[in-house]
Amino acid sequence: MNYSMTFYIIGWILRLEAVFMVLPGVTAILYHEKDGFAFLITLLICLAIGLPLTWKKPSDKVFHTKEGFVTVALSWIVLSVAGAVPFVISGSIPNPIDALFETVSGFTTTGASILSEVEPLSHCVLIWRSFTHWIGGMGVLVFILCLLPLTGGYHMNLMKAESPGPSVSRLVPKVQSTAKILYTIYISLTILQIIFLLIGKMPLFDTICTAFGTAGTGGFGIKNDSIAGYSTYLQIVITVFMILFGVNFNIYFLLLTKKFAQAFKSEEIRYYFGIIAAAILVITINTRHMFDNIGTALQQVSFQVGSIITTTGFATTDFNEWPVVSQTILVMLMFVGACAGSTGGGFKVSRLVILCKTVRKELHIYLHPNAVKKVKMDGKSIPHEIVRSTNIFLIVYVLIFSVSVLLIGFDNFDLVTNFTAVAATFNNIGPGLELVGPTQNFSLFSSFSKCVLIFDMLAGRLEIFPLLLLFKPDTWKKF
Amino acid sequence: MNYSMTFYIIGWILRLEAVFMVLPGVTAILYHEKDGFAFLITLLICLAIGLPLTWKKPSDKVFHTKEGFVTVALSWIVLSVAGAVPFVISGSIPNPIDALFETVSGFTTTGASILSEVEPLSHCVLIWRSFTHWIGGMGVLVFILCLLPLTGGYHMNLMKAESPGPSVSRLVPKVQSTAKILYTIYISLTILQIIFLLIGKMPLFDTICTAFGTAGTGGFGIKNDSIAGYSTYLQIVITVFMILFGVNFNIYFLLLTKKFAQAFKSEEIRYYFGIIAAAILVITINTRHMFDNIGTALQQVSFQVGSIITTTGFATTDFNEWPVVSQTILVMLMFVGACAGSTGGGFKVSRLVILCKTVRKELHIYLHPNAVKKVKMDGKSIPHEIVRSTNIFLIVYVLIFSVSVLLIGFDNFDLVTNFTAVAATFNNIGPGLELVGPTQNFSLFSSFSKCVLIFDMLAGRLEIFPLLLLFKPDTWKKF
Repeated sequence: MNYSMTFYIIGWILRLEAVFMVLPGVTAILYHEKDGFAFLITLLICLAIGLPLTWKKPSDKVFHTKEGFVTVALSWIVLSVAGAVPFVISGSIPNPIDALFETVSGFTTTGASILSEVEPLSHCVLIWRSFTHWIGGMGVLVFILCLLPLTGGYHMNLMKAESPGPSVSRLVPKVQSTAKILYTIYISLTILQIIFLLIGKMPLFDTICTAFGTAGTGGFGIKNDSIAGYSTYLQIVITVFMILFGVNFNIYFLLLTKKFAQAFKSEEIRYYFGIIAAAILVITINTRHMFDNIGTALQQVSFQVGSIITTTGFATTDFNEWPVVSQTILVMLMFVGACAGSTGGGFKVSRLVILCKTVRKELHIYLHPNAVKKVKMDGKSIPHEIVRSTNIFLIVYVLIFSVSVLLIGFDNFDLVTNFTAVAATFNNIGPGLELVGPTQNFSLFSSFSKCVLIFDMLAGRLEIFPLLLLFKPDTWKKF
Repeated sequence: MNYSMTFYIIGWILRLEAVFMVLPGVTAILYHEKDGFAFLITLLICLAIGLPLTWKKPSDKVFHTKEGFVTVALSWIVLSVAGAVPFVISGSIPNPIDALFETVSGFTTTGASILSEVEPLSHCVLIWRSFTHWIGGMGVLVFILCLLPLTGGYHMNLMKAESPGPSVSRLVPKVQSTAKILYTIYISLTILQIIFLLIGKMPLFDTICTAFGTAGTGGFGIKNDSIAGYSTYLQIVITVFMILFGVNFNIYFLLLTKKFAQAFKSEEIRYYFGIIAAAILVITINTRHMFDNIGTALQQVSFQVGSIITTTGFATTDFNEWPVVSQTILVMLMFVGACAGSTGGGFKVSRLVILCKTVRKELHIYLHPNAVKKVKMDGKSIPHEIVRSTNIFLIVYVLIFSVSVLLIGFDNFDLVTNFTAVAATFNNIGPGLELVGPTQNFSLFSSFSKCVLIFDMLAGRLEIFPLLLLFKPDTWKKF
């Protein structure tokens, strides 16, 4: 284990976090809010620890997958702990566990809150909550890759650990340039959404916070009723952008470089939109009687489906009241999740496609024992490594999921609450059903359960393995 | 597809089913029950179709895995349809779908019933219900292997398709002898249980039915309150035998042939008993306050845990009233299931162990990328084929499970009912939670949902693939 390099990168994370504090700080000045001091203090703490750690670049350059995974996991933990400080200092969320829950929920783009009301919060705290979504969405290590004067082969190992989905494709030969392209697309789409929201007469502060929440597929709102109070136009804009941020960003790169044929050939995208369309259709038919007319039904259902499959978690209606079939579909969408290489969480459409194809191949082998058949995607056969790691991902996913449901069971809430609470945090969505439904929050859980859910949120965002490695004694051996 | 051979074996299945009818027939004569005629008529129908089909042994000897799978799937469907006839004719269950549900539930050793009361049923109908468990437990094709004058290599293909668990090991070089040994152990254990129950002063008729239900890990009772009305001694006997029938039968063979070291080395058995002990411990602590004393608690919890993990489904108490943690553990046990090579259903302990080891291996690879590590069990490395097919099993399992929950959702019952109804049928257990809890039954579902659950029970018992192949057009090609 190359500790010096890990500490060096964590130092950079803290320096970066100090910079992040400027946005809520400036907001505090604009709105004359005292809570701004909390961000100033946090900024100073981050610098006080971050600067010494990055004083000297370490000479030990060994940086394997293991180091990449551990560094990413630790970075996210440090990022979250530091990010929780302003909540505690400002008194917005005095309990440290609650503050950590809220921050992890932010950075992991979950959007599950322990607050029953957000409107009493000051502007600077609100924008910080939403900003954590935006930072966590694209990944903070990827951001560092854009800035940091690192050389050597470890870029890929960091990016592999932080990027969602079964495989990371470099858009261009240099990892650093890939990261820059991704961030450029991310920023452009965010600005585009802000413009569209401004056209709909949403106040500037609201547009920024909402765009942050949408871009990161996070889901923290700045109103108690989430998005329900905004006009239909604004809801439609948000629906469209939620779905757009769930698309694999590689597709945007292909579109930008005019490789249209390749972009439209992507199987993941086709299945992604196919699933969305099918879900909207069935749920609209199923909930038709609950809305005034078919248009409203379609719009409301589209919003909820887009919000859940992209794991954003904004809400405009209480789907906890919907018929069971619709609820079941939403719960299934929670697990499906968005595309790999997007800011969304969940199991990822591409993984699901790979698994389904693996099964089809297996059935084929029963019929034609001597046939050689490979699992293909987008016309290319998928490397055996990816098929295997996708299978393994499913196993760990199911195991961690079951254990989490068991552990939070000690709070003695009903099974649907426990099941969907884990589903909503592990898949980085936000709201679940029953006691954690869209109109409820996570404050009812015990501190122990909150810690379990914090683990689930981090495991979900970092795709499990980086976090699991932390618990393996082998990892810490310095050999 | 070799149709002639498939029809030939189905013919034998029907001839065998005619023989099975003798037991309820004799019972009817002893108790002077008119329902006996229903079994006589069914016997004649089975012979009328079965005899012509087996008139001439087919010359086409081609019999691959595909033929094995398809034959097993079709045999089970034919067996169930014919087995449902007496229920309809006798008027015990007039609705054909209900009768089929009850019969499939019997043969697949599920034990889920659509009857709210079983005590009004005649003795011959009751013994037929329980007898289906016993027949289905060890598998009817395995039985045919013992009797049928078949030659050639297709024995293994039939056995592979019908036997539960990731791998079939031949105990002795000849498959037919293996089948005979398994059936001898099965019959001996059943008789042993009958003797122990008789010692506890249970009436003879009750002992036979109860032993059938325990041996097949089925769960149909002959009392409305299942096993709750029997004495503590009888409940303990049943607990012990339920757990014994959940053990891999290979272990008994090893014990009989005095290979004690090898028997005790079995990892699956150790995990099986380990899981049972842990579950009993936690649930006893968790439900302690609900019982008069710790002894009763331990005995009652042991019964329920044994009943659920072996997928038997007998009940002595309404665990739907237990705290959520205990319920969650029971639901988890529903999925774990018994050992491979036992009469129990579920995912199987060995599969779970293989999956966990695969994950550990994967984590190891992250740390030591160049290490060569194989997944081992009982000291021997597991063939890659088994690891792969276990992974695939998990995928199909999850997919079929989710779709089933969605489909029965159209009946608009609560999520826990739907989830545990599928869990209880797909894993061949019997009772679930809420509306399908131990004191409830499955009659509330629509015919459509019942058909979905019938599919799940068959898929669960035959371990999915044989049944899935029926839906692949390729399968029916005659090439």
